[in-house]
Amino acid sequence: MQDFTWSPKEKQIARTVFESAAVAEEQELLERLKTQAAAMKNMEDLWALQNVIRDSERKYQEKYDYRYSQLIAVFGGLVREGRVSIGALHGLSEEKMKYIERIASL
Amino acid sequence: MQDFTWSPKEKQIARTVFESAAVAEEQELLERLKTQAAAMKNMEDLWALQNVIRDSERKYQEKYDYRYSQLIAVFGGLVREGRVSIGALHGLSEEKMKYIERIASL
Repeated sequence: MQDFTWSPKEKQIARTVFESAAVAEEQELLERLKTQAAAMKNMEDLWALQNVIRDSERKYQEKYDYRYSQLIAVFGGLVREGRVSIGALHGLSEEKMKYIERIASL
Repeated sequence: MQDFTWSPKEKQIARTVFESAAVAEEQELLERLKTQAAAMKNMEDLWALQNVIRDSERKYQEKYDYRYSQLIAVFGGLVREGRVSIGALHGLSEEKMKYIERIASL
């Protein structure tokens, strides 16, 4: 999969879809953390929040990895999660779409 | 200062005053962090929050150090900050009070 080439048009599609999913998940993550923060009652809750922030930030960074060598897997995962519709990716090559759909169906 | 002995009555006074100041500052800290958390708009804000949590937690732990070898300095600092009134410590030995007031006036 690392040998795929991306045309300028494909890169544009990928960037748009990627950014949109990343921003949406960023906002969901922030809302979840705000809710947990607002409920803190003591230092133990603060330690718990710290752990959750660290974990969720790491997962977020790992998940939204915009390297062309990773994008097919990233989009496959996002389609599987329902965060990206396969339709939003139309314009990518047939072969890329095939791989993405395959990963999405795992 | 590490050679002070603490009578049971003094330990009780120290514990009560210490806990009360620690809880008050814990709640202030949590309120500040809740306000900062509620204002988060993006991941950069989350990183900033993470740093503030880490720093303020470390400072809090260093400050509220309930070892008898540290208590005079701890109370001196708390009186200086206005977090503890010198009156709340009445019942401690004159010598301890003298040291606490000296540190408070630094």
